[in-house]
Amino acid sequence: MKEKLIKKRRIYSGKVLDFYVDKVLMPDKKTATREYTSHPGAVAVIPFLPGDKKIILVKQYRYPVNKITYEIPAGKLSRGENIVRCAKRELEEETGYTSNNFRKMMSFYPSTAFSTEILHIFVAHNLRKTVSRPDDDEFIKIVTVEYDYALEMVKSGKISDSKSIIGLLYFRFLL
Amino acid sequence: MKEKLIKKRRIYSGKVLDFYVDKVLMPDKKTATREYTSHPGAVAVIPFLPGDKKIILVKQYRYPVNKITYEIPAGKLSRGENIVRCAKRELEEETGYTSNNFRKMMSFYPSTAFSTEILHIFVAHNLRKTVSRPDDDEFIKIVTVEYDYALEMVKSGKISDSKSIIGLLYFRFLL
Repeated sequence: MKEKLIKKRRIYSGKVLDFYVDKVLMPDKKTATREYTSHPGAVAVIPFLPGDKKIILVKQYRYPVNKITYEIPAGKLSRGENIVRCAKRELEEETGYTSNNFRKMMSFYPSTAFSTEILHIFVAHNLRKTVSRPDDDEFIKIVTVEYDYALEMVKSGKISDSKSIIGLLYFRFLL
Repeated sequence: MKEKLIKKRRIYSGKVLDFYVDKVLMPDKKTATREYTSHPGAVAVIPFLPGDKKIILVKQYRYPVNKITYEIPAGKLSRGENIVRCAKRELEEETGYTSNNFRKMMSFYPSTAFSTEILHIFVAHNLRKTVSRPDDDEFIKIVTVEYDYALEMVKSGKISDSKSIIGLLYFRFLL
C-alpha cells in the first residue's frame, strides 16, 4: 500500500512550518502529488492543581480558525528537544506553573492526510507557581476550571481543538 | 485578543490545500506572520453494521506520517457541498456501504494553530451494501471490527489519528 517518493519539493520554509508538494509513485505505478506541512512535533499537558479537581486552560485567539479558544497548554518541539523537557517548558511559559509529577499519557496525529505533526499529551499533577506570570496579558489568559466542567465544555463545543478533546476524554475514560 | 489581517499572501494553491503566510496586527500593535493551510473542511463517519456491534474502518497508507493507518471513513468537502451529502458520498466511495440513518454527532478543529480545517463527525446505523466494491484494492482496504475492539485500538495506539480517536471516544462516553 505504500507510496514511494519520486521527488521532494519544498514550496516554503517558514518560521514554524515548511510546506511541501511531493511527487510519489503509487502501488499501481501511477504518480500522484502529496501536499502537506512538515511540523517538528508538539506536546500538550493536562495540568492538575493540587487536589486533582481543577486544571488550567489557556484562552487565546487562534488566527486560522478566527476564534477565541480554550485549550490545554501546548507548544511545539524545538529541534532535537526532549519531549518531557518541552512539556515542562511550555507549561511554565504559558501558565507560570510547574510540576515534578509529569507523565506521558498518549500520542496522536492531528492530521494524517496533510501534516507530519505528532502530538504527545502529558498529565501533570501537583502544580506549583514558579513565576508570577501576569495571567491576563493581551495574548493569552489562563483560566482554572474543574476537570468535570472541562468535559462539559467538550460536550457543548466550547472546547473544540483535537488535542484538548483527546486529552480530556482519554484521561477520564481510557487511562 | 483578536489579530487583524494586514496582508494576505497565498504562497501555494494546491489540489487539496492552499498555503498562506499572512501578516497580522497583534493586540499590542506589533506585527506577526501566521503560516497556515486553508482547507475546505471535512466529514467523517462512524459506520455501524446492523446490530450496532461492528463498525467499518479504512486501512490505508498515509504519506505525511509514513504509516499504514486504521481510520474511520472520511473525506473533504467539495466547494459548497452539504455536509450530510458529503458524509454519505464519502462513506459509499470508501466502503461501498450506505445508510438511511445518518446523524451529526459533533465538530472539531484538528489544528487550530496551523489549519482552517473543521471536521464534522457523523454516526450511521444499519449500513447496507450498495456497490460490490472490491474491498481489497491496492490503495484502501476496509476492515470490520467490533466497536469495543476499536476502543482497544485507540488505547494501544493502533488507531492514532485525531478524528477516529475523537469519534470513538465521544460516541461512547459523551453522547
